[in-house]
Amino acid sequence: MKQASTRVIAICSDAIGETAEAVAVATLRQFELTNTEIKRIMNVRHEDEITRLMEEVAVRGGLVVYTIVQPELREAIKEESIRLNVRTVDIMGPMMQAVIDTFNDTPKRLPGLLHRLDEDYFRRIEAVEFAVANDDGKDVGAILKADIILLGVSRVSKTPLSIFLAHKGKKVVNYPVVPELAPPAQLREVTTGKIFGLHIDAGQLVKIRSERLKSLGLPIEAHYASLERVQAELKYAQSLYESLGCPVIDVTDKAIEETAGLIMQFF
Amino acid sequence: MKQASTRVIAICSDAIGETAEAVAVATLRQFELTNTEIKRIMNVRHEDEITRLMEEVAVRGGLVVYTIVQPELREAIKEESIRLNVRTVDIMGPMMQAVIDTFNDTPKRLPGLLHRLDEDYFRRIEAVEFAVANDDGKDVGAILKADIILLGVSRVSKTPLSIFLAHKGKKVVNYPVVPELAPPAQLREVTTGKIFGLHIDAGQLVKIRSERLKSLGLPIEAHYASLERVQAELKYAQSLYESLGCPVIDVTDKAIEETAGLIMQFF
Repeated sequence: MKQASTRVIAICSDAIGETAEAVAVATLRQFELTNTEIKRIMNVRHEDEITRLMEEVAVRGGLVVYTIVQPELREAIKEESIRLNVRTVDIMGPMMQAVIDTFNDTPKRLPGLLHRLDEDYFRRIEAVEFAVANDDGKDVGAILKADIILLGVSRVSKTPLSIFLAHKGKKVVNYPVVPELAPPAQLREVTTGKIFGLHIDAGQLVKIRSERLKSLGLPIEAHYASLERVQAELKYAQSLYESLGCPVIDVTDKAIEETAGLIMQFF
Repeated sequence: MKQASTRVIAICSDAIGETAEAVAVATLRQFELTNTEIKRIMNVRHEDEITRLMEEVAVRGGLVVYTIVQPELREAIKEESIRLNVRTVDIMGPMMQAVIDTFNDTPKRLPGLLHRLDEDYFRRIEAVEFAVANDDGKDVGAILKADIILLGVSRVSKTPLSIFLAHKGKKVVNYPVVPELAPPAQLREVTTGKIFGLHIDAGQLVKIRSERLKSLGLPIEAHYASLERVQAELKYAQSLYESLGCPVIDVTDKAIEETAGLIMQFF
């Protein structure tokens, strides 16, 4: 438990509050706020849950960020905001209104959780399990079951990228490119458009591998982290990508989310 | 490429657009929109990128959802919105204004990407790699390096939950509970508060395991998916959790995000 004297940004949701928290975290990156706690309440169904939360925020100082779709609960937040003089931010309201006004459509106004354990959800969960089970070329046969096959040399971020793409519902395998190891024959049988080669600047990879060796307590002078070895591996990888005719994605200086975004644009 | 006749919800971001897309997807769940494409443009730095996007939306019909922090680009969106009569939704603006008004703080107004590859980012990436490497009790020694140790019987969703918690920056190992297998001695050495036992309703687990057997092409009458076996495993798991004195989280009917939220409240 945080001490009661910290200010609070409260997330209030009739589902899980992930969306509101994403907006809050992205916003807070723009500030140097200290002594501010993010507090989340989920599955809100009754007005008194809202009252209790907002009274706490009124006492501690702070604001309330909410994703609530049911009209009577939205009304309760607005009323308590005025009564207690607590500032609120409505994350989904303006977007819902814009969709209504643009497309003349009527929202269902069902709390997120009620239709959350759907087909799409189970597809994403299955994709995450698939990515974990098939990380680092563990099962060559999985190449033919995958939606996306990532190739790349060691420490080019294949694993986190696979997981991130899995969250988008894609079944991903990643396979390590090593000059001394013949690439699996299955790569030649894959439907066009599923394979992606990852590239990275040699200097940056030397740094990443040196850090890796350090964290493992190994000497950083190892061949593995030398510029010469890294350049040879990257050159071999490029020639493999060319022979496969696959797109090459440069991950240098890119966040995983950004690389994933680039790959998803192919689908 | 989608056909040009579909309507479009355009995400326009000076970073990756994940936040805006999260709000758009959560909102669209409230509608039965068909024939609507979500299109994302990232790393926006110049006004003409905004003009091009908004002219396309004006022609196709649709709206623009944006996360842009730089004032001149925000101005450009507002101007083009009026000129082209295209509706826009500002995802971060209201939240930023609320923070400014509530805490009297000044935002940095730097696009998200510029400070994205920070310490927190690398901690999360490392946590994902840790979770993948230590899935399903692969390395018992990792128990002592983890922030969170998840215990549970087969198919209780240990793997996706581990990955989800890893995205929050926690190093997670999960360990399968099987009556025939003595639990690793390391569990008794772990600092209090790190171990969580997962529980699920027996009937639901029978269903999940039967589905699993079916998807593997195995007969669903197997012992593994019988109510008797499932009940025995769950009873054994409960007695293990009691002897460890760890919190027990019931995952029945819960989305992974919700279970993760419950566990994160302990930290």
